[in-house]
Amino acid sequence: MDSRGPAVARSEVMTFDLNRLAVPIVQAPMAGGPSTPALAAAVAEAGGLGFLAAGYKTPEAVADDIARLRAATDAPFGVNIFSAPQVQDPDVVLSAYARGLTVEAERHGVALGEPRYDDDAYAAKVELVLGERVPVVSFTFGCPTPETVAALHEHDVAVWVTVTDPAEAMLAQQAGADALVAQGTEAGGHRGYFCDDDGHEEYGLLTLLRLLGAQGAPPLVASGGLMDGPGIAAALVAGASAVQLGTAFLLADEAGTSEPHRARVAAPGVTRLTRAFSGRTARGIVNRFMDEHDADAPAAYPQVHHMTSPLRAAARAAGDSEAINLWAGQGHALAQARPAADIVRSLATDAAAALRARGPDHL
Amino acid sequence: MDSRGPAVARSEVMTFDLNRLAVPIVQAPMAGGPSTPALAAAVAEAGGLGFLAAGYKTPEAVADDIARLRAATDAPFGVNIFSAPQVQDPDVVLSAYARGLTVEAERHGVALGEPRYDDDAYAAKVELVLGERVPVVSFTFGCPTPETVAALHEHDVAVWVTVTDPAEAMLAQQAGADALVAQGTEAGGHRGYFCDDDGHEEYGLLTLLRLLGAQGAPPLVASGGLMDGPGIAAALVAGASAVQLGTAFLLADEAGTSEPHRARVAAPGVTRLTRAFSGRTARGIVNRFMDEHDADAPAAYPQVHHMTSPLRAAARAAGDSEAINLWAGQGHALAQARPAADIVRSLATDAAAALRARGPDHL
Repeated sequence: MDSRGPAVARSEVMTFDLNRLAVPIVQAPMAGGPSTPALAAAVAEAGGLGFLAAGYKTPEAVADDIARLRAATDAPFGVNIFSAPQVQDPDVVLSAYARGLTVEAERHGVALGEPRYDDDAYAAKVELVLGERVPVVSFTFGCPTPETVAALHEHDVAVWVTVTDPAEAMLAQQAGADALVAQGTEAGGHRGYFCDDDGHEEYGLLTLLRLLGAQGAPPLVASGGLMDGPGIAAALVAGASAVQLGTAFLLADEAGTSEPHRARVAAPGVTRLTRAFSGRTARGIVNRFMDEHDADAPAAYPQVHHMTSPLRAAARAAGDSEAINLWAGQGHALAQARPAADIVRSLATDAAAALRARGPDHL
Repeated sequence: MDSRGPAVARSEVMTFDLNRLAVPIVQAPMAGGPSTPALAAAVAEAGGLGFLAAGYKTPEAVADDIARLRAATDAPFGVNIFSAPQVQDPDVVLSAYARGLTVEAERHGVALGEPRYDDDAYAAKVELVLGERVPVVSFTFGCPTPETVAALHEHDVAVWVTVTDPAEAMLAQQAGADALVAQGTEAGGHRGYFCDDDGHEEYGLLTLLRLLGAQGAPPLVASGGLMDGPGIAAALVAGASAVQLGTAFLLADEAGTSEPHRARVAAPGVTRLTRAFSGRTARGIVNRFMDEHDADAPAAYPQVHHMTSPLRAAARAAGDSEAINLWAGQGHALAQARPAADIVRSLATDAAAALRARGPDHL
């Protein structure tokens, strides 16, 4: 485990090399609160790769996060950027959904947000990571153009693209991605589909890894439902170069996870895919809001995200876990409430033990 | 791999010991055609565990399959039995679905089948495997009662139960199951849900294995989307005692897979969960029938199975792959058209190589 020494300092490398991580554990970017510079720094200092989540933040706030992270560690890190949503079908009717949410807004004494379209400042965020020469930039919800990938490469930025199926993997490979974050259906939070929110095959992680391996994909970062040492070891045996864990860090001391969210992650509870909160499919722990609004939610991201934002903020402040998005992967019951560095170290130790326990002689 | 010698002959054991298989590969029972005594015998002779599928067959036909298998090999084997479906809601209206299928029936010049309820001769099949002292009996669609499990144990029959989530695993454990077939969402064919066909969390295999491991489940047989050596090795590292593969044997020489089904398994194509063919959720390759009837199909098994049976038989005979149930797991593109023994041996060799390639020093 420690044979390759400590994490490579950022100044020592040109483009980030996934295979040189001291511990092949990536902390997933979790937009909307859980990801913090402190969490990324703790993971990085323990030998993993920390990530900042640029989603929903202004470029200025992201720049501030980068500065705070760099003040805390010299280790390489990543920034995740949301690819710009497709221009929406103008016929998508949001008013019916808004009517259904009226009672929710009233319950928390707020008005629904304006269902506006925006691209989450995509271009400005790409400019930011170029200028900052961030070691790794991952994209979710779509693939950057080959021109953007080339520009990032010219600035020594490694480009990762989140993919959910073999076709998306092919597109990302053709665009020049250095690594693919293979997102199995087990993953918490938004699905990384490149385009339409409907009709995607929901691949389990293990099968997805093998299908991508068979088509000669770039190095793979396995994502989705990985929570413990044996699960991590299994993903590596299945061909992943590293694993990316989000839910496993939701209860970490350094995570910005809200209290009502923490309480539900730690409790038993099934998860489901839903569009109710954001207009885009995501996995979360089932609660009242999901049950009541799931069926009516249109595929309209980010409009629905903006509509529900005020009422989710109010519910969060009120500690009402029945009205907020409880993003979590299918393995959330295994999450550990500990300092992130302890989580990284115990996962690495347990993964090594799992590999030792089932060597080729034990087949 | 060969250190434990050849497969243990049936006469040498009392109750089957999963850990004594020469190769920890189980051939999944595939009712409706693909499973044959020849396929089970070939897998068993290569050191794996072959399975017969009792589903849809008369007890007499199953007895004949058992006799043919025993004539071909002394190795232990399994028989899979469908648990009796829950008594259906009498209000389920099948006539609307029947109207939608009229055009399908006319297309193939047949009448729809009678939408009758039956229990697939559950009690008679349990009696049969008791009398035959079949080494392993697995159950799908529900858990046998503790009394049935005890009776099987008294006849030296090992009892496996197919489970899709932690709650089902707990019930199976309480009933006395010797092993659990952990079925991930990646799996082809019917989902093994114990009860209602709606609202189940679709666990990916890897996460399911870890959740069941954490709750102290009996030995696990990993099932769902496993197609090659690294995938098998990963499932073992994740804690499975063995793996169960169905789709990986669909193109085997000895499989009874129909020609139109074979052609589609070998071609690229996405899969989806559907109730259109049987009234019970199953994963198959997407085709016209699924696209056109999916949304209207009621949860009414086995009534819908019997309704569509004549038109599926006619379509199969006509080579029309757009109107038959193309059950297949998510990894079907990796299926090999070879003798089953060659498949078993190459999978075992490749799995051992994958474990060797990623030992604890490579973490």
